[in-house]
Amino acid sequence: MSHAYGAITATSPLEKLTIQRRAVGQHDIKIDIAYCGVCHSDIHQVRSEWEGTQYPCVPGHEIVGRVSEIGEHVSKFKIGDLVGVGCIVDSCRHCADCEEGLENYCDNMIGTYNFPTPDAPGYTLGGYSQDIVVNENYVLKIKHNEQQLAEVAPLLCAGITTYSPLRHWSAGPGKKVGIVGIGGLGHMGIKLAHAMGAYVVAFTTSKSKKQEALALGADEVVISKDVNEMATHQRSFDLIVNTVAASHNLDIYTQLLKRDGTLTLVGAPASPHQSPNVMNLIMKRRSIAGSMIGSIAETQEMLDFCAEHNIVADIELIAANEINIAYERMLKGDIKYRFVIDNQTLTE
Amino acid sequence: MSHAYGAITATSPLEKLTIQRRAVGQHDIKIDIAYCGVCHSDIHQVRSEWEGTQYPCVPGHEIVGRVSEIGEHVSKFKIGDLVGVGCIVDSCRHCADCEEGLENYCDNMIGTYNFPTPDAPGYTLGGYSQDIVVNENYVLKIKHNEQQLAEVAPLLCAGITTYSPLRHWSAGPGKKVGIVGIGGLGHMGIKLAHAMGAYVVAFTTSKSKKQEALALGADEVVISKDVNEMATHQRSFDLIVNTVAASHNLDIYTQLLKRDGTLTLVGAPASPHQSPNVMNLIMKRRSIAGSMIGSIAETQEMLDFCAEHNIVADIELIAANEINIAYERMLKGDIKYRFVIDNQTLTE
Repeated sequence: MSHAYGAITATSPLEKLTIQRRAVGQHDIKIDIAYCGVCHSDIHQVRSEWEGTQYPCVPGHEIVGRVSEIGEHVSKFKIGDLVGVGCIVDSCRHCADCEEGLENYCDNMIGTYNFPTPDAPGYTLGGYSQDIVVNENYVLKIKHNEQQLAEVAPLLCAGITTYSPLRHWSAGPGKKVGIVGIGGLGHMGIKLAHAMGAYVVAFTTSKSKKQEALALGADEVVISKDVNEMATHQRSFDLIVNTVAASHNLDIYTQLLKRDGTLTLVGAPASPHQSPNVMNLIMKRRSIAGSMIGSIAETQEMLDFCAEHNIVADIELIAANEINIAYERMLKGDIKYRFVIDNQTLTE
Repeated sequence: MSHAYGAITATSPLEKLTIQRRAVGQHDIKIDIAYCGVCHSDIHQVRSEWEGTQYPCVPGHEIVGRVSEIGEHVSKFKIGDLVGVGCIVDSCRHCADCEEGLENYCDNMIGTYNFPTPDAPGYTLGGYSQDIVVNENYVLKIKHNEQQLAEVAPLLCAGITTYSPLRHWSAGPGKKVGIVGIGGLGHMGIKLAHAMGAYVVAFTTSKSKKQEALALGADEVVISKDVNEMATHQRSFDLIVNTVAASHNLDIYTQLLKRDGTLTLVGAPASPHQSPNVMNLIMKRRSIAGSMIGSIAETQEMLDFCAEHNIVADIELIAANEINIAYERMLKGDIKYRFVIDNQTLTE
């Protein structure tokens, strides 16, 4: 049995639980979880703000730790390796998406929590727990220093969710890239786009975040409510990655795209955005696209890129029993920029 | 002075007018217009359903005819050549879009009617007229037989508007391409996508159009109101070109796109579409894009492609004095698929 933190109903606070992980199979790895990042999705899931949450629910998909046990056919990892697990713990392994190495788009992708599994209790349980058992093909190697491990955890979701669209839409030298929102995802987007060599403009509604965004690597910071400031950037962006999931007006960003530019959304709003102006798309052959996390291979590429460029997340480390307070602070935007649970504290 | 047809107010029917074309400049061509296609945009413009219509307004941007006079520095055309003029008669000639040969995306593109010009009366006058004077760089060569000339006219707008996104998003062998709407644009989209070698699915709300769409070259026709029929095509399209400008639900089409598929809109609705579901985009990295007509070079490429594949529009030829009836029939969808004015009748 393992100690964990989770919710037993949609309205109850998270509490100490014990869970059972499956026996380590031939291709499996058991990981002693050192740290787990706290993603906004965790809140949606435990509070059943999305459909179909099963209880007890143990969230967490920004998992880092050390290999403690390996199956007999495991070839990629050995005991003691520093490893990570992100949002994906399995997929169908044979569809076109899986065969192209894009498990994140597999129709039968198995998420790290609340997805069907033959293991007890019938659905996956996430990283707010002492350990996890995962097929080695869904585990990532971590090349950062061990001292950075807590700060690496958020790369597994916030990092890859912004890295993937930046790479897919070719952020790099000579490209002007916007990042909308300076939160868990956005702060990673700024760091990553900057490290890729793009000219990075951060958009925020709060003047107070201007200095922080510059410190994160933004070349400019634009207050999105300032119509005049926005107008100076008209038709100048190759790509804007929009991390804001709250319903808002997308037109103010599509107008800033060059011909053939793309506004990529990585969050879905609970209530619809204002319907985007179609003429804004037609006039410059612009696109509005979506992007979902990233594949296992791309997540590894991102982790290696971050290790090479010494990129980690800016975090606030918490004990497991502070998680309910952390959720409340996240809902108020009171976090720079990611809470990470110290999983050693799960037994307290 | 030239005979023309146009409107003197937003609420008056079109009537006979006389207009003055500019003198033929050194790089200009004068064209005796043989035929002019009737585009839905013409109705919007003469009725001032878009902002800024100036009167008298002479619409028409699907122009075909014969060169009757050339400026002394004209090098590409000679008197007697069969030529066409589409939606563009000039552009700034020096912006990034113009320099890349994409005048259709130039911020200062001059449309064939109702755009500013130093010529009298201060704004451009379109092809419902006996002749037109255009810089040779904005004139297209026509390689079809002269007998097909009337049927070639709609290629200059309806043809290029569908050809450009089909080419840009790589319609061709091995690709499954949808065309939404079987009207002036859609019927060209079906013919063009079929000739490019794509597997073509036409979407229509009317069962009555099923046989026609198959005859135009569709491999399948789907009734978009039939939820079950639509469901059989989920996640299967590389590209869907949506020619329907009326406000409608785009989600039923984005759901049909494969991973990385694109829904391209070529018409803007007067009232907004229902706001598209963002999760449909995120889950498969899909895009909603826009596309506007095509460049001069691409329009020439399209005309050559059509000449080679013997593609023309399906038209109903009318006399100029039938234009007001034609507009009423277009508003009822009572046309297969494009009215074309016989400009010889302008003097009647």
